[in-house]
Amino acid sequence: MIKPKDKEIEFIKSHKVARLATVDGLGRPLVVPICYYFDGRFIYTPIDKKPKRASPKELRRIRNIIENPNVSLVIDEYYEDWTKLYYVIINGRAEIIESGEEYQNSLRLLSEKYPQYGDMKLSGLNLPVIKIILERIISWGNF
Amino acid sequence: MIKPKDKEIEFIKSHKVARLATVDGLGRPLVVPICYYFDGRFIYTPIDKKPKRASPKELRRIRNIIENPNVSLVIDEYYEDWTKLYYVIINGRAEIIESGEEYQNSLRLLSEKYPQYGDMKLSGLNLPVIKIILERIISWGNF
Repeated sequence: MIKPKDKEIEFIKSHKVARLATVDGLGRPLVVPICYYFDGRFIYTPIDKKPKRASPKELRRIRNIIENPNVSLVIDEYYEDWTKLYYVIINGRAEIIESGEEYQNSLRLLSEKYPQYGDMKLSGLNLPVIKIILERIISWGNF
Repeated sequence: MIKPKDKEIEFIKSHKVARLATVDGLGRPLVVPICYYFDGRFIYTPIDKKPKRASPKELRRIRNIIENPNVSLVIDEYYEDWTKLYYVIINGRAEIIESGEEYQNSLRLLSEKYPQYGDMKLSGLNLPVIKIILERIISWGNF
């Protein structure tokens, strides 16, 4: 496990959306926008109640992680002024968590970061959470 | 090759940033923010002059595409009002183009979409362009 630099931590924590890439057993990627919570060590992203095309366990990102735990995610913001561009890429390994203290904590922290999750009562939905263990961080640009 | 729906085309064309996932030969993904031009059939994204950590041919997204042509990209925008969320995911196959009429055209169209590319004189830099052939489109949400 590696530790991000302070400004990377600040940037990751101050944003609301990341884009997560997972890969299936045949090497085909899928990238999706996600909400996440970062506790300074791990990233947690829930399968939430926003309507999906499939039930949680059949969701392609979950199947991909089961077939191949390697993931990559990027947090960035676009500006017309390209001198302001900055991004943080996190490459890591994902696990699915579905119960226990860490699972419950992650739901609580996600609901604190996103009031929308409070409204959908995330904790009562028994939906899986993806936990990402950071293995490499690449940051670029001016921040 | 598949054709996106009209509203997907409009959404793709009206945005300036996408996030592109490539995968190396060992199944490890990398997701990066990209600028792109979509002509209704193909997506073109250049390796540009924004400082990178490596020379163009050594750039990891290029090496990944050579090892594994499968790519995924997402175009979306985050809103606090989750009823407004919408995304378009494009899964496809990537090729590197470096010369010829299609290459020159893509640079011209990219420079028209992004005046910043005009300023960096993209056409004179002899940098590779990634061409994405659309194989599957997934759109979700309210648009």
